[in-house]
Amino acid sequence: MIDPRDARPTGSPVGLHRVLAPAGVLPQAATRLDTEWNLWVDEVRVRVERLNLDAASFRQLELKHDRDGAAVRAEVLDIVASRGKMQNPETGSGGMLVGTVEEVGPQSPLGLSVGDRVATLVSLTLTPLVIEDGLAGWDGHGEQVPANGYVILFGRSIAARLPDDMTPELALSVMDVCGAPALTSRVVGKYDAPVVAVVGAAGKSGSLSLAAARDAGAARTIGVVPHQAEAELLEASGLADAVVLADARDPVALSDAVAAAGGPADVSVVCVDVPGCEGGAILSTREGGTVIFFSMATSFSAAALGAEGLAADVTMLVGNGYVPGHADYALSLVRGHEGVRGLFERRL
Amino acid sequence: MIDPRDARPTGSPVGLHRVLAPAGVLPQAATRLDTEWNLWVDEVRVRVERLNLDAASFRQLELKHDRDGAAVRAEVLDIVASRGKMQNPETGSGGMLVGTVEEVGPQSPLGLSVGDRVATLVSLTLTPLVIEDGLAGWDGHGEQVPANGYVILFGRSIAARLPDDMTPELALSVMDVCGAPALTSRVVGKYDAPVVAVVGAAGKSGSLSLAAARDAGAARTIGVVPHQAEAELLEASGLADAVVLADARDPVALSDAVAAAGGPADVSVVCVDVPGCEGGAILSTREGGTVIFFSMATSFSAAALGAEGLAADVTMLVGNGYVPGHADYALSLVRGHEGVRGLFERRL
Repeated sequence: MIDPRDARPTGSPVGLHRVLAPAGVLPQAATRLDTEWNLWVDEVRVRVERLNLDAASFRQLELKHDRDGAAVRAEVLDIVASRGKMQNPETGSGGMLVGTVEEVGPQSPLGLSVGDRVATLVSLTLTPLVIEDGLAGWDGHGEQVPANGYVILFGRSIAARLPDDMTPELALSVMDVCGAPALTSRVVGKYDAPVVAVVGAAGKSGSLSLAAARDAGAARTIGVVPHQAEAELLEASGLADAVVLADARDPVALSDAVAAAGGPADVSVVCVDVPGCEGGAILSTREGGTVIFFSMATSFSAAALGAEGLAADVTMLVGNGYVPGHADYALSLVRGHEGVRGLFERRL
Repeated sequence: MIDPRDARPTGSPVGLHRVLAPAGVLPQAATRLDTEWNLWVDEVRVRVERLNLDAASFRQLELKHDRDGAAVRAEVLDIVASRGKMQNPETGSGGMLVGTVEEVGPQSPLGLSVGDRVATLVSLTLTPLVIEDGLAGWDGHGEQVPANGYVILFGRSIAARLPDDMTPELALSVMDVCGAPALTSRVVGKYDAPVVAVVGAAGKSGSLSLAAARDAGAARTIGVVPHQAEAELLEASGLADAVVLADARDPVALSDAVAAAGGPADVSVVCVDVPGCEGGAILSTREGGTVIFFSMATSFSAAALGAEGLAADVTMLVGNGYVPGHADYALSLVRGHEGVRGLFERRL
């Protein structure tokens, strides 16, 4: 057998050489990846310590198995074994991981060294993964999964060294959603003293987006939450100028609540992982404003047809999880805003 | 029984007063609308001449019924009767219509007069519709459906008077996709002499987007089509500086083809109604560029996770079907570009 390093000395920077099926698709769309332990010359292998499953994926697995931790664990193991990556077939989502660099191909452009403790900032849905310990240290009852095994990073993968001033759990939890505050900051900065409404504001991406909006020059930040308990948490964090209760799936209730709190918004940021929030977000946004959808539960056609149906001249952005410098920026927000740090730490 | 005009003299501008089920949702998300013939004071009733079904919706119906026209017609009638609107339950999409204004509520802000021949520019998915002729004049074999019946327009609905210098069929066909060229023009205008790639360039929204890109200052336009026959049509139209053949679902093939034709693109416009084109469009776009998704087959999560997985710093827009002035702009493109007019007329 030809050693793959001889057959194809440089891998595709986006990992096409690791796709086994179907042929010709990108790793994220693949049903099976090649988890070959030997590296192509521009790859990096990382020894896994901990997986952080995507929240929507974990919730689906928990519901499906009625909170039976052993069954959840068995299904995760089965997915990884059959696909060569952790991608929930129902939600399509994955998560991320923490580990230690084990080997660096001589032509890797990532700038990593053996022994670096890193978090991967590309999704597990496109990262070749082998689990070697049967997830023996995980009870199946939380998104953070202690694990032993390895993953492969490609030339264009992204991994960030873990900071010294916070626990790996906190850093990983922050990096998991670090695309949201970076894009929010970029969009808010294009407006002059805008009103910014964040829907799902007490959550991870929501609280970071609120902090980013304020730092980027928002004149007023409105945090929308679904329950009184979350309202109290968000009030205490001091991250929002106004905290309002509304069901984000009810367009009239949501837009009325945002209007009463100082809206309509110039920028609306949707961070709630439930379907049906498109119309309300559009209706809460001023003409000429922007809606950023970060929720994976967003329906493309509901957003497109919804805006058309409302004759709403708003820009609607697919929340891209990658913005250069996003991890460092999100970590700096946690350092600079006690309220963000508090909301994250109580989730760990 | 209280006359609804007395109970609620002014309707909601977005039609909330016509939603029967489920309660509290916008008309587009409703499963059933109130088709009451009497108008609220800010509404308009239009006598229908012709429906123009959304292409994806019609294709789904045709496939489902194996091109049995009578069965397609029966299902359309059933959908309209049960929902009070034409919204394909599978695709979620509707279409638009041509008709003549029959009655104008005294407080309607739309500026229409009885007898005006108009096309509605909001989707049929949110427009109360009654069909009165059993679609007797339609054989179920085309998207353009002769029909007699009526629709209700709300305060914030949009309707455009039909122009005198083209047939209603042509005008309707243009207005159906008029959001695409307007948004393309706006985005292209933000770049300095950009390269613009249009995927699905020989179609309706594709050809209009190509013309819009050139008018808005594109330095180079690249039209991507799937078949030789479409390539020849597009070549003959003169709308693209380069015409390339590629399967848009194959990210590597698509991005290689765009690169060979002068890419990567600063602006990529996705106009093909097939799933799985997100990765290729992202991979065909330069860092700092923009991808506009007009296809209703776009998957939100595939776009968001795809860009993250490729570490692609691109702006991704949900193609909003509404931009102020979109209908007049699209009609002006048809008047100014013989190539666009030719591609449209051969579809009628």
